[in-house]
Amino acid sequence: MREWEKYIRKVKPYVPGEQPDKADMIKLNTNECPYPPAPEVVELTKSFDTDHLRLYPDPDAKALVNELADYYHVKPEQVFVGVGSDDVLGMAFLTFFNSEKPILFPNITYSFYPVWADLFHISYETPELDDNYCIKNEDYYKENGGVIFPNPNAPTGVFKPLSEVKDILDHNQDSIVIVDEAYVDFGAESALTLLDQYENLLVVQTFSKSRAMAGMRIGFAIGSEKLIKAMNDVKFSYNSYTMNQYTLKVGVAAIKDDAYFKEITGKIVNTREAAKKRLTELGFTFPDSYTNFIFATHKTKSAKEIFMKLRERNIFVRYFSNPLIDNSLRITIGTDEEMEQLFAALEEILNDK
Amino acid sequence: MREWEKYIRKVKPYVPGEQPDKADMIKLNTNECPYPPAPEVVELTKSFDTDHLRLYPDPDAKALVNELADYYHVKPEQVFVGVGSDDVLGMAFLTFFNSEKPILFPNITYSFYPVWADLFHISYETPELDDNYCIKNEDYYKENGGVIFPNPNAPTGVFKPLSEVKDILDHNQDSIVIVDEAYVDFGAESALTLLDQYENLLVVQTFSKSRAMAGMRIGFAIGSEKLIKAMNDVKFSYNSYTMNQYTLKVGVAAIKDDAYFKEITGKIVNTREAAKKRLTELGFTFPDSYTNFIFATHKTKSAKEIFMKLRERNIFVRYFSNPLIDNSLRITIGTDEEMEQLFAALEEILNDK
Repeated sequence: MREWEKYIRKVKPYVPGEQPDKADMIKLNTNECPYPPAPEVVELTKSFDTDHLRLYPDPDAKALVNELADYYHVKPEQVFVGVGSDDVLGMAFLTFFNSEKPILFPNITYSFYPVWADLFHISYETPELDDNYCIKNEDYYKENGGVIFPNPNAPTGVFKPLSEVKDILDHNQDSIVIVDEAYVDFGAESALTLLDQYENLLVVQTFSKSRAMAGMRIGFAIGSEKLIKAMNDVKFSYNSYTMNQYTLKVGVAAIKDDAYFKEITGKIVNTREAAKKRLTELGFTFPDSYTNFIFATHKTKSAKEIFMKLRERNIFVRYFSNPLIDNSLRITIGTDEEMEQLFAALEEILNDK
Repeated sequence: MREWEKYIRKVKPYVPGEQPDKADMIKLNTNECPYPPAPEVVELTKSFDTDHLRLYPDPDAKALVNELADYYHVKPEQVFVGVGSDDVLGMAFLTFFNSEKPILFPNITYSFYPVWADLFHISYETPELDDNYCIKNEDYYKENGGVIFPNPNAPTGVFKPLSEVKDILDHNQDSIVIVDEAYVDFGAESALTLLDQYENLLVVQTFSKSRAMAGMRIGFAIGSEKLIKAMNDVKFSYNSYTMNQYTLKVGVAAIKDDAYFKEITGKIVNTREAAKKRLTELGFTFPDSYTNFIFATHKTKSAKEIFMKLRERNIFVRYFSNPLIDNSLRITIGTDEEMEQLFAALEEILNDK
């Protein structure tokens, strides 16, 4: 080994869900939205003046920050934007989790949390979920260097009522508490309403699921002015210009088209509720989902086998090899038509002895 | 101070050049290209299918990586892409500079280097340039935790011949050496030709200047497969999807249009050479520039005064308050017409006793 190789940072990278690109595939594996982005986004693109691309974008991303502030009824100084919620969350880990004490997050959760912690040499503990995949509040009463959990949780889909989130905040006045709400827009309740009471609360959301723009990479955090200033200081110490000219424009367009947002999230919720019935009939069990996916376990057939057989039929769902959850599948809610094809395939697979 | 505030990362953020947005301004302050992006970029945008935005982009950015690999005659495994060269450089600091020994970069250089070093708690030393703003090679012969310098250097515009870059590499077999070539396409010579000989060499370039796409945020690094794999591992530990769908497409389009690239960089070089004559006539001195800017000092009038008076006339150049360089202005090369307006304004200002 050459001398310089010794000082390369050692990491165990996050492995994103596979991104197959096949004609006629049914892609229910990475929680994307089955509907296209808002019509305003299409219009904006048609009229987009590429001459602007020669100039740096606004480093403060003011147009998008102001639009989000208006929409969520907070001050622009309370909004931070980044290259997807992964960028926002990674930046939050780097900014806030610098105590010697371990941070806390559930043992079954978004699998990027331990990766960021390792990347930035942050110690952590992972309290176990209960048998119903619920976060046990009392596990978060101990001293810690910070708390983060998704609500609803991933990949379980389980939603923690706001009163319980408030209880965790009440027991963590000395830590920064991040509520990762990537999936909040499908029937859950946001912790944004608690912001006035907790200066140490950061709420993170994304355009990737409910706003049909995973391909644009837009995420955001809302919190107290103090937290957002700290994140912006770190951002300006890493990359002044994270949001490009086109991103800023389509981000604003997506927020403006609120009727479309409500229409597509409503459709996904309806499709999900119907899917719950069908999956139950097919012999699956699952924690009740408030998200755009269902975390389903079959009573008799192994998750891995179902996953492989769906794959052979060009239907992609998410399988996790983590032993804690390796007998469940995370199935993204697609269109009604896609779900019918999924159910038909599942029927075949499950009847095939 | 609340307990959680104690653990917020302390930083002194980089301050980007101001981004004024005035009608009829002449913007020569942030080294943007005065010409629009390639016609292929315009075409691509017109036909861009926004439906794709609902899906995550390719996390490996293969289309863009392959295009760059082809263009620069390297393997795709030797190319890393990021959200502007700032993202690429920041990621390189985080990936490679983890020794206890200080890294080395010039005392007058891109002012983001000390910011990244501070952000990631990397110690550094800053050897002085000589009186002609040149990097003294022998300062880089000592033990260190890494070496980084721009070539041509910023904000001086001074180009170090490849034989001297090679000498620094020969004296640094135990360190990773990053050559930051943001401005290489305006007549300088790239260290890419040295890659076969030095596995510890990383060359970083950007679409922001010579490819007229500062607004798109595309930067890239080319190096040995070992270095690029290490950077990708760290990238995948921070944000899997950094390059959005639109960015990937226009990035490829910009590289394909090589004739346009040569046309606009050629025009900028011609305008720069003419500007050198005019600035000399106006009483300015400057190190010979191989970039799209000139770092000019007036024999009698202070840089700050000239800067302020140009500003009053809606002409923006870059002034640095750093005492080492506070009597020089960094003037971006604009179109011939913009430069004529600059010279006319300078004449007025300099004749005004």
